[in-house]
Formats: sequence, structure tokens, C-alpha cells
Amino acid sequence: MKAFYSDRQMRHRPTRSFYRGRFTAAHENPERVACLQRALERAGCVTSEPKDAGLAPILAVHDSGYVEFVRDAWMRWRVDGAHGEVIPNVFPPSRESVGDRTGLPVLAQAGVYMGDLSCPIGEGTFEGAYWSAQAAVSAADAVLAGEALALAVCRPPGHHAQRDRASGYCFFNNAAIAATRLRERFERVAIVDFDMHHGDGTQAIFYTRADVLTASTHADPRDTFPFYSGAADEGGAGAGLGANFNIPLPAGADDDTFVAAVAALFERASTFGAQALVIAAGWDAHGDDPLSPFDITSAAYTRIARLMRAQSLPTVIVQEGGYHHGAIEDALLGFLGGLA
Amino acid sequence: MKAFYSDRQMRHRPTRSFYRGRFTAAHENPERVACLQRALERAGCVTSEPKDAGLAPILAVHDSGYVEFVRDAWMRWRVDGAHGEVIPNVFPPSRESVGDRTGLPVLAQAGVYMGDLSCPIGEGTFEGAYWSAQAAVSAADAVLAGEALALAVCRPPGHHAQRDRASGYCFFNNAAIAATRLRERFERVAIVDFDMHHGDGTQAIFYTRADVLTASTHADPRDTFPFYSGAADEGGAGAGLGANFNIPLPAGADDDTFVAAVAALFERASTFGAQALVIAAGWDAHGDDPLSPFDITSAAYTRIARLMRAQSLPTVIVQEGGYHHGAIEDALLGFLGGLA
Repeated sequence: MKAFYSDRQMRHRPTRSFYRGRFTAAHENPERVACLQRALERAGCVTSEPKDAGLAPILAVHDSGYVEFVRDAWMRWRVDGAHGEVIPNVFPPSRESVGDRTGLPVLAQAGVYMGDLSCPIGEGTFEGAYWSAQAAVSAADAVLAGEALALAVCRPPGHHAQRDRASGYCFFNNAAIAATRLRERFERVAIVDFDMHHGDGTQAIFYTRADVLTASTHADPRDTFPFYSGAADEGGAGAGLGANFNIPLPAGADDDTFVAAVAALFERASTFGAQALVIAAGWDAHGDDPLSPFDITSAAYTRIARLMRAQSLPTVIVQEGGYHHGAIEDALLGFLGGLA
Repeated sequence: MKAFYSDRQMRHRPTRSFYRGRFTAAHENPERVACLQRALERAGCVTSEPKDAGLAPILAVHDSGYVEFVRDAWMRWRVDGAHGEVIPNVFPPSRESVGDRTGLPVLAQAGVYMGDLSCPIGEGTFEGAYWSAQAAVSAADAVLAGEALALAVCRPPGHHAQRDRASGYCFFNNAAIAATRLRERFERVAIVDFDMHHGDGTQAIFYTRADVLTASTHADPRDTFPFYSGAADEGGAGAGLGANFNIPLPAGADDDTFVAAVAALFERASTFGAQALVIAAGWDAHGDDPLSPFDITSAAYTRIARLMRAQSLPTVIVQEGGYHHGAIEDALLGFLGGLA
């Protein structure tokens, strides 16, 4: 299996994240990649450097003003004499009603373009997020060139990023970028997201589109980030009605429950008539993950990989979350074992 | 002049505020009141304890779910094991699209009901904000009972608070509460706001109403909090079209410029046909204020008080911002001097 990763993704090095009243070290740190790399090596999979496809595939998904913000915010923040990484502290009452976003100072833009306090923008953030997106593009291009399967070791992750908004450690929506790339050949693409958190950014990007199904299973958002979306009754809107599918799971869910939910996502992709798949693969449902409310083992990921292979569709696997170093190595190894 | 203040307002004691990448001590602290009290004493004005008019005047302006949040958030935050005061870290992409707000955990509600990181909710916040609002109600009631002038030493302040959202040190919109109270007798009420910051909460509360004019002069919001509103072209909407009036001023504005702007607000109130006034009196335009981009002296406030008296309208003065302890004492003293 072809796999893509660039060391330049490590340039994003968040130092802190504010959550429930205090700063903690960033869960989403560069060290995660070493664990994923070890699993890939143990499975005999070598990563290649992604090609540089430029900004076009990112701009095919994201607002240009937002992309400029992610690119320039760190420098503008320093010019303004603000402190540390770019972290917003003031938010508009309604993002929709903010007229000229580009004329705002960087602090006020941060409140428009950033949805929480877990995605600080530092010196290397744009470069890291850019190359994470390029890994997704190269994996999609490999599938477009005829590979049955390709994997992108995306980090920072992407599925919480909306068209014009960073959130939940995510800046550019790698899964959405891969799906958009696949759409160049395949008329119907399905994104299957088994990260523990709802893929709210991906859902928002495709919510009114009929050509890309977004299907996600996750911890119930009534108790868990991202809180404001991910319910079972969110089925798409307009032309996209019926092309969004959520399966929230209760705390304590085990392997059988989790695998059954992912099986239902694949069934929905099949009913949808997907000609290609993007897998938003987070490992944070694993019971050892510090954020997980589930009781899931690495064996579940082996079963999920087999289900995925049984679809017999061209597939791009995009790395999302997973924060326990041992668990993500073991979970990815389990997953790769299911592909053999 | 009757003036109202309760020591219970001191129960709101924020310890910190996050701004431009770091925590600092809270500008809006209980010590501000001692300075205001000194000015009142020097002018021979004694404050009385406000009556307890209950929640009704607050609920006449604010959403009940929001008021419950302000009341219960501190206890719920502690039950959830979160840290320090209630400070939000995650925000919905669109507040309008959040369905059932009451079912959300306190962390997710904080992102809906709080607009920035400068209004932490601690143990005494609800009590402090409640009595600050009661001071405004008692001042309005004094005017309704025939007083020409009454003053409410409101702290925490109010003009950034929207119907369902705390922001900018503000929880309950004391000026809006006083104006709503005055509406029981007076058909047309004008709020004149000369705090250095745009009174965005007050504007939002009355934006579509024809019976309450909101008129504010302030630092240009393109450079200054609250950033997202306060432009000169925001003139009200629907039935309220024409009943909103903003005069943003450039950095460096002096006494003449500032007093001329406030004079224009009073003229607009007169054209509007106001039968009573609420003055949202912040002293943070003063050149010594740490947040002020202006070059304004206490003499400006003497001139503003004379302009106000020249309107010959029943008037409630509601304390808003002002953060330099010496400047607010001197500014209020100057203002009171203009009433003599």
C-alpha cells in the first residue's frame, strides 16, 4: 500500500491547549507521528514524500480568506505585539453577520476563523497543515492513478476543519480535500469517519451536496466535543438531503457495538452508490485514549479494515485523531493487519 | 440626586481575563467601585441600597435559559470537575443553529452564552450581576416616581451583554433593563452611550425596535473591541430602522471631538422624540485609561453633563466601563460637577 507523509508536517508544534478552565499540553503533538510510523514499519509499509500540488486542492475546499489567515496569522500576531501562539479570545455573536472579514485585525479574525482554543497557530502551523493536506492529495492521486488503496499520515488532522474555520486541532480538512480530488474521476464518493469525535467540519462542507456522502460514528455529541453537531437526525439539506449519516454511540460502547456501527456506515455508502471511499481514520475510540468514553480494543480496527476491504472500492485512508501513543500504534497495527 | 449601589455587587470577583494570547488580571475589578464612591462622596451624593425587584426586570430583557446559565454555571462547572472560573473554550460555528441549548453540558453552553474570555463566572458572579441590575431598576423606579435624575453604580457593567450572551465584562444589560423599566411610563426612550467601547449588546437588544433609540459614540470597532459591530452604517432594522445611531471616532480624538459626538447623540435623541433618557456612562474614553485610544480629559465629562441637563428629560445614569482608578474618580467627579 502506498503511504504518504512529509517531515514538514512536524513544523506544527502547538505548545498548549485551553480546555475546561486551564491550559494543558497539546494532545495533538508531533510525537504522535513516530508511533504511527512505527506501526507502518512493523507492517512493512514505507511512506513516501507527497508531491507539492500547491494551494489549488486546499482552495477547492476552503475559503481563500481563511487560508490566508492560517498562512499569515502568526506573523501578524507578532507584529501586533500579542503573546505566544495565535489563540482567539473574542468571538462574533453571529459569524454570518460579520461583513468584511479581511479588514479585521488579526485578533478579531481569529474569533471568526477559529472555533475553539485547541488549535493555536504558531510559526510552523501553516507549513504543517499545508503538507498534511498534500499527503491527502498524493494519496488521492495514487488512487486516481490506479492504486486500490493509499494512506495519508495526515497530521495535523482535518475532520473538524470547516470551509472557513479551524477547530479541534484541525486546520485544513484533509478528508474533504481527498474526497474532492477523487471526485475528478468518481461521480459519487463516500467519506466514512470512525474517529471517536464527530467529523463536524466534513459534515458542514458537504451538507448540501448530493455527490459526497459523509458518514460518521462517534461518541454522543451531547456529552462530547464537538457538542453542536453529530446527532442522528442530521441527514443533509437541500440537494444533500439523505447524503449525511451519523451514528452517535453511548459511553461504554464495546468492539461489537463500534464495529456494527462502522458496518452500517459502509452499508450506507453502498446504498449511496459510492464509487470510491475516503476513510477518516482516528484511533481515539480506543479504550486507552485519554479522551475516549468507549471500551474499544485494537481488534476492532482489524475487523473494520476487513469490512473496508470487502467493499472492493478504491479507497484513500486519511489519518485523523488518536492521542495515546501506545494505543495509536497498536490500533493502526491492528488495522493494517486486517488489510493483509 | 438619588444613587443606588449594593455591596453585594462586589461578590463578582473575576481573577483573570484572557486577551491577545495571555491571561492578565481582570481590568473590571471590585476596586473600581471604591473610586466611584469617593467621587460621589466628594460631590455630596450618598448611595442607597437598591430594592430587590426580583428576576422579572432582568427577564424582561434576557433569555431565561441564559439567566439560568449565569445563575447555575459556577456550580455545574465544579460538579463537572472543571478548573477555576467558568471560561469557555469551544464555540458553535453558528449560535443560531444550536437546537436544544438547555440540554448541553455547561462547557458547551458556555460557548453559546459567552462571547469572549473576559467575563469569567465565579462563585459570586450571579449575585454581583443580579444586584448591579437591581441598582439600575431602582434608579429607573426613582425616575418613574418623579425624580429628574437618578444614578446606578452598576458594576459589573452591562452594555456588551446581549439578550442571551455575556461579553466584555458584562452579564446583564443594566442600561437596557433601565430603559425597559422606563418604557412602562415613557413611550419613547433613548439610550445615550459614551463608554469608549461600542454598546453592542444594547444595540442588538433594541436593533429591531422603534420605541428605544440606541445611540453610541466609541472608538472605531475596526480597531477596538467589540470589533464586530458599531459602524456608522448600522441604523437599525425592521421596525427599528432609524432607531440606532453610531458615531465611531478615530484614535487620538480629543475633548472637542468627543463632546461634539455626544452632542450629536443627544440631538438624535431629541429628533427621535425621546421622553426619557438612559445614559450608559463609561469613563474609559479618558486618556489615562489603559484601554483608551483617545486623548480625553475629565473636563469633557463636565461638558457632557451640562449637555445632558440641557435636554430637560427624566434621566437614569447607568455606570458602564472605566478601568484606570484615578481617571474614573476624576471623570465621574467632573461629570457630577457639570450637574451642579
